[in-house]
Amino acid sequence: MSRDDLRTLKGFRDFLPAEKRARDHVRGRIVEAFRRYGFEPVQTPTLELASVILGKYGEEADRLVYSFEDRGGRRVALPYDQTVPTARLLAQHANALPRFFRRYSIASVFRADKPQRGRYREFTQCDIDIYGSASSLADAEILACTHAAFKSVGFDRVELRINDRQTLIQTLEPFAVDGCDVYSIIQTIDKLDKMSRDAVLGELDKKGLGEARAVEAMAAIESAKPSENLAEIMSAASNLGVTEDALCYAPTLARGLDYYTGMIFEVHLGDACAGSAAGGGRYDNLIGGLGGPDTPAVGVGFGFDRIVEAAQASGLVPGVDRGADVLVTQLDAATLAEALQAAGELRGQGIAVEVYPQTDKLGKQFKLADAKKIPLALMLGSDEVKAGEVTVKDLRSGDQHKVARGDLSGTVNRLLADAPA
Amino acid sequence: MSRDDLRTLKGFRDFLPAEKRARDHVRGRIVEAFRRYGFEPVQTPTLELASVILGKYGEEADRLVYSFEDRGGRRVALPYDQTVPTARLLAQHANALPRFFRRYSIASVFRADKPQRGRYREFTQCDIDIYGSASSLADAEILACTHAAFKSVGFDRVELRINDRQTLIQTLEPFAVDGCDVYSIIQTIDKLDKMSRDAVLGELDKKGLGEARAVEAMAAIESAKPSENLAEIMSAASNLGVTEDALCYAPTLARGLDYYTGMIFEVHLGDACAGSAAGGGRYDNLIGGLGGPDTPAVGVGFGFDRIVEAAQASGLVPGVDRGADVLVTQLDAATLAEALQAAGELRGQGIAVEVYPQTDKLGKQFKLADAKKIPLALMLGSDEVKAGEVTVKDLRSGDQHKVARGDLSGTVNRLLADAPA
Repeated sequence: MSRDDLRTLKGFRDFLPAEKRARDHVRGRIVEAFRRYGFEPVQTPTLELASVILGKYGEEADRLVYSFEDRGGRRVALPYDQTVPTARLLAQHANALPRFFRRYSIASVFRADKPQRGRYREFTQCDIDIYGSASSLADAEILACTHAAFKSVGFDRVELRINDRQTLIQTLEPFAVDGCDVYSIIQTIDKLDKMSRDAVLGELDKKGLGEARAVEAMAAIESAKPSENLAEIMSAASNLGVTEDALCYAPTLARGLDYYTGMIFEVHLGDACAGSAAGGGRYDNLIGGLGGPDTPAVGVGFGFDRIVEAAQASGLVPGVDRGADVLVTQLDAATLAEALQAAGELRGQGIAVEVYPQTDKLGKQFKLADAKKIPLALMLGSDEVKAGEVTVKDLRSGDQHKVARGDLSGTVNRLLADAPA
Repeated sequence: MSRDDLRTLKGFRDFLPAEKRARDHVRGRIVEAFRRYGFEPVQTPTLELASVILGKYGEEADRLVYSFEDRGGRRVALPYDQTVPTARLLAQHANALPRFFRRYSIASVFRADKPQRGRYREFTQCDIDIYGSASSLADAEILACTHAAFKSVGFDRVELRINDRQTLIQTLEPFAVDGCDVYSIIQTIDKLDKMSRDAVLGELDKKGLGEARAVEAMAAIESAKPSENLAEIMSAASNLGVTEDALCYAPTLARGLDYYTGMIFEVHLGDACAGSAAGGGRYDNLIGGLGGPDTPAVGVGFGFDRIVEAAQASGLVPGVDRGADVLVTQLDAATLAEALQAAGELRGQGIAVEVYPQTDKLGKQFKLADAKKIPLALMLGSDEVKAGEVTVKDLRSGDQHKVARGDLSGTVNRLLADAPA
C-alpha cells in the first residue's frame, strides 16, 4: 500500500482528542437533560436490510443511501437517518416496549452526498421522540426537554420557534390554484429564512397565485393566531419550565417535510449559531407509513455537529485541549518508584496523570507537557525524596511549589482549581 | 414492504433501554479510568478506503471484511478492527500528534463471520494503546490502567496474567524441529487454557517433537523465570498501584497473534467471566508494517460485550431497568399546571421525571410506571392543591406520603436514596 492511500475517504472524518473530547462533552450534557426528562437510550445496528432503508423518502434520498450486497447475497444498507430504523425497531419489539415510549438515540447516519463545508457523508444524528401519545402534553414535553438540553450545554439564548402545520394548511388552502396546491405554497413560504419576503412573494406569483393573491396569502399567514392546540402546548411547556422569552410563535415557519401533522418547531441560538440548531414536530402517520405499528409520534432532531461547533465558539467546552492534568517527570532511576507511587496516588484522587515513560532532559519532558497542554509537572529527585518533599511546577506561570509529600494531592487540586480551565 | 422484513440482520443487534443503559454505564466507568491514566479519545470513520483495511491480517480475515464499491466507484470497507484504522490515523496526522501518544477508542467493528452465541457481526472494540515508547514503563502503564478500568467497573477479583514473548521464543527455540518451528510450538502451548496438558503434549509429539522432547519443552517453559524486562514491568506496575494479588506471572501464556514482540497479558475476572476479559501486549513492528510510521507500541483490547455481561451478572450495573425516578400522574385538567410545575421542579434537582401525557384511570397510569420500573408516582389532585400538599406514592412498597408542596424534592430524594437501586 502506498502511503498516499493512508487517508480518510472524502466526506469522512477522524476526530483527534480535542475535537473528540468536545463532542463527548456536549453529548454528555445533552444526554443529562434527556435522562431528566425520562427519555431512554436505544441503539440500532450500523447495517440494516436494504428493504428496511430504501423506498422511504423518495428516489432522491434512495440515491444517497450506501447499500451493497453482502457475502451472503443479502442487500444491506447503512442508515440514512434514525427514523426509519426506529420504525423497524418499534415493529420488531412492539411487545417489549411500554405504551408511551420516550427514547433517545445518538448515532452516525450516512449519505453519499456531495461533500462540502460542514456537510459530511457520515454525521451524527441525535433524536428524541415520544411514541404512542397524541396528546399536546407530549408535544410540550418535547419542547421542554429540547430547551433543557440546550440550557444544559450552557447556551444563553435559546429560542423555540413554534407553529402548527394545520394552521398553515387551513390558512393557505383558500389560495391554492391549479398547479400550485397548498403544500407547494407552504414550500415557498418555508424559504422566508433564506430568501427575502419579496422574493418569496415573487415565487408565489410565478407559481400561479398572481401578485395580488400572493400578497394576500402572505398577509393571511403572517397575521395567523396560534391554534387552540398550539396554545395548549405552549401553556404546558411554560408550566414545565420553559421561560417566556424562549417560546416564540412563528406563523410562517413551515419546515420542509410534508410528514408533519401538527406542531412544528425549530431552535435558534441567537448569534451562537447561524441557522437552526434543532428541528422537529408531530408526525402521527409516519411510523405506520414506514411499515411500523400505527403510532402517533412527536420528536426533534438535534444538529449535533453544528451544536458542538456553536458550543466551542461560545466557550462552553473548556479544557478539551488538555491531555491530562499532571505530567509525572522521570528524573533518575533511583527515584522512579516514588514517582510512580505519586502518580498512583493522584490518580486515586481522580486526577488525570500522564507518566513520562523514560528519563530524558527535563526540557524535553516539558515539551511533551506543552504539546499535550498539561498544566502541571511533578518532579521527584533524590533531594526531594530524602527531604520527604515533592516539587509541583505550574507550567502556565512557571511557578514552582516545593511541598511536603503528604500535601501533594491537596496542592495539585488547589492549583488545578485556581487555574483557568 | 412486508412486515416480515422488519427485522435486524442476522448477527446484528438492537439495544433496548435496559441493555443500552448497562452498556453506557460500563463504558462510562471504563472511560473514567482511561482519563485518569492520561489516555485521550479518538474516533475514526465507519467507512475507510478498502486499501486501508484489506491485506493486513491474511486472506482469512480479508474474507470477513465488509467491503463494497461506493457510488463514486471507490472500493470502501467497514473496519475489521481498530488497529488498522489507527495505524492510518497515525500516518495521516503524524504532525499533529505528540511524541508519546496515548489514545483510547471505543467503536463498532464488523466481521462477516458465522453468527453464534456471543459472537456478532457488529461488535464493540475498546482499546487503549501507547504509541512512540519502547520503555517498560509504557508497558506498566498499560497494565495499571487496565487494572484500574476493571476496578472502576467494580470487579472484585482482577488478575493480570503476564508473560514475555521473548522468553517463550528463547526457551522453546531449542525444541524446534523440521516442520515445527518455534512459533508452531508456541501456538500449541497457547492451547493450554482450552485443552488438557496431556492433549497439548500429544499435539507437540505429533508435530514432530516426539514424546520425550515434548515433555522437556513443557517442563522448560513451565519453569521459566520472568525476564529482566518483565520483572521491571511488574515492579513498575506494582509501584503504580496494581496490587500484588492482581499480578500473576504466567510462563505458558502465549497469545495467538505473532505480531507481539515483548510483554503479553490477559485479564481474568475469576468466576465473574469465563475466559479472558481483555488481552494485549507490546507490538513494536506492527504499525510500521501496516503502512503507518515506524513506531513502538503497547496496548490492550477489552472484550466489551463480555465485560458488560459479566458486570450485569455480578450485580455491578444497578438500576438500568428504571425508565425514570418519578412518574407525574395526571388527575384532572384543573391541576395540570401544578403537576407540570412539580415535574419541572424535580427535573431542576436532577431527578428523572416522566410526565404521564393524558388523564387516565390511576391504575392505568401506575401500569406504565410498572412497565418502566419507575419507583415513585406523584399525585396532585384538587384537594392536594388546595391544601398546598402533594402525595408521593412509593410503588415498590405501596406506601403513600402526603407532604407539604415545599418538601417535595426533599421527600423524593430521600425515598430514592432509601430504596434499593
